[in-house]
Amino acid sequence: MESAIDTHLRCPRTLSRRVSGDYAPPFPMFVARGDKALQQVVMAYFGVQYSEEGKRPQALAALGHIVESFGLADGPVRHDLTDHVDNQDHHNLMAVAYWADPAAYCRWLRSDDVRAWWESQERLTEGLGYFREVVAPRVEQFETLYAFTEDFPGIGGVMGQCSDEIEEHGYWGSMRDRIPLSQTDWLEAGSELTVVSGDPAKGGRVIVRGHDNIALIRSGQDWMAAGEDERALYFDEILPSLQDGMDFLRDNGDTLGCYSNRFVRSIDIDGNELDESYNIGHWRSLDALERWAESHPTHLRIFVTFFRVVTGLEKLRLYHEVSVADGKDQMFEYINCHPRTGMMRDAVVPAAV
Amino acid sequence: MESAIDTHLRCPRTLSRRVSGDYAPPFPMFVARGDKALQQVVMAYFGVQYSEEGKRPQALAALGHIVESFGLADGPVRHDLTDHVDNQDHHNLMAVAYWADPAAYCRWLRSDDVRAWWESQERLTEGLGYFREVVAPRVEQFETLYAFTEDFPGIGGVMGQCSDEIEEHGYWGSMRDRIPLSQTDWLEAGSELTVVSGDPAKGGRVIVRGHDNIALIRSGQDWMAAGEDERALYFDEILPSLQDGMDFLRDNGDTLGCYSNRFVRSIDIDGNELDESYNIGHWRSLDALERWAESHPTHLRIFVTFFRVVTGLEKLRLYHEVSVADGKDQMFEYINCHPRTGMMRDAVVPAAV
Repeated sequence: MESAIDTHLRCPRTLSRRVSGDYAPPFPMFVARGDKALQQVVMAYFGVQYSEEGKRPQALAALGHIVESFGLADGPVRHDLTDHVDNQDHHNLMAVAYWADPAAYCRWLRSDDVRAWWESQERLTEGLGYFREVVAPRVEQFETLYAFTEDFPGIGGVMGQCSDEIEEHGYWGSMRDRIPLSQTDWLEAGSELTVVSGDPAKGGRVIVRGHDNIALIRSGQDWMAAGEDERALYFDEILPSLQDGMDFLRDNGDTLGCYSNRFVRSIDIDGNELDESYNIGHWRSLDALERWAESHPTHLRIFVTFFRVVTGLEKLRLYHEVSVADGKDQMFEYINCHPRTGMMRDAVVPAAV
Repeated sequence: MESAIDTHLRCPRTLSRRVSGDYAPPFPMFVARGDKALQQVVMAYFGVQYSEEGKRPQALAALGHIVESFGLADGPVRHDLTDHVDNQDHHNLMAVAYWADPAAYCRWLRSDDVRAWWESQERLTEGLGYFREVVAPRVEQFETLYAFTEDFPGIGGVMGQCSDEIEEHGYWGSMRDRIPLSQTDWLEAGSELTVVSGDPAKGGRVIVRGHDNIALIRSGQDWMAAGEDERALYFDEILPSLQDGMDFLRDNGDTLGCYSNRFVRSIDIDGNELDESYNIGHWRSLDALERWAESHPTHLRIFVTFFRVVTGLEKLRLYHEVSVADGKDQMFEYINCHPRTGMMRDAVVPAAV
């Protein structure tokens, strides 16, 4: 048993953990461990949006182009692909990519090919929407949690190693307690989302400025290797509540501080569905995410089911990763997306001078 | 809006609150306020136990005697009466009494009349069981919480005044955050329950020694003045989950650190049921109570229902009081009670020398 916070990330606390040293979790859970040299990562969500089914081939081709660009110098360590229908019934394909080095990401982003494609006039005229939602948390700004110990998805795959059983899980507040920065910082939200370029209502290019400590959660379910019983468990007992909760957040999140919620299905490069799904939630603050998770009926149902079945899980893989990021380490850019896409929905448009 | 911790009980923290200064509760709740002179209270549960219905008149007479003794010098500030069937289907009547001064309680307890009655040989032979379970928390060791602002039951009635809307509620961990001592102390359980005199298996007189930080919760529902809608709310939506949760704790609490759980009905001096009930739970620690409350399906259902209806409550009164106490400020005594009564069930009987 060990702390979720890696030894080199521990520091003298000014804020206490929620539970005392006596606390013993009710079942084993694990976190990803990274090399000590790892300082900051990049979590990048590249989206292609279309409204009519007929545009899917074109959208898949655009997604293919993005994935191709990952093969350029300084591309991501890993990526995966997803598909979902959003709050306006638009279709969205995403390439979700992770870098272990923000400098490499920057070089990639600013490389001629990547920049030229994004900045091209064609992006405005070809009848697809595009977005890039990127955060770069430092290692003390994120946590992970897995009910399994191998082949971690998402940021865990970048980190590469697995902890021993960890102490900080099984109680509300443990997510925060696993984030190293919570030892000394409340992780409070700063200011508000603001449109700093363009006009969401008009389409075209829009840039939204984030703010300190926007929280991002990726929370996933992978039933690829699950047998019949675990598939039934997922589809009959977990998914209905999960779907309710995700729909609720997608449609009503603005009242709770949930800026955006996408329940996505993993796909291959040809757009075929894989047996994996995950939720991508952007929240005004970790605090807002905590309040929803610990009080909303749909999430409490998911939580109760998880507690009941977790010790029997074999091949059904459940996990999450949660980060907060400085405002300066966030980028939210949109091209011809509908105005309720991502951070645009809740972003303040400054009054014209 | 103000802290649940009264001004004169605030101190420099060594342990932080769970939520930051930014936190805003989702609806108003209140706590009882006492005079600054109030230093320590006594919460005393005096029980009469019987196994056959035919003994009820005799048991009621014994309860009446106990209540009469409250009228002696240094008797309690207030008391109320309850009835319940326990984990062995025995009937139990209780007089629940509160003192605002442990010295007065001590003088009362040691007064000739009270002592002589308890110590009398008749108590052993008249075919009833008796118990006294008493804790004396200091003001920094307990908290209260009310969805109403007048005529507080229990310890709130002793304290006599009501706070403004308080900050620390609506999140898991707020119970702990309302206890002043949590500013500097983890409130961890010390040692274990131990039989220090007598043998529970043999009946007769038994004394159990408690340990530091046993947590005691009184959690109540009063529908005396409720109209038809609120009665339906209580009986149809709250009570079924509540009953399930209380039954679960009564029968399975030992695995969770719940030493004793009694879901009692308020009665008048003649044994007639009143429209009020409450739960009396003794826990190894506040931590154990927290874990159950925030993860058990029955309690989460109660919690979700409460969140949903609380802002509409008019005459249905929901409240709780929670204390921890030093081991030296606890007294658990039994006469001819079955061995699974109260603290006896989980108390260690020292091996004979």
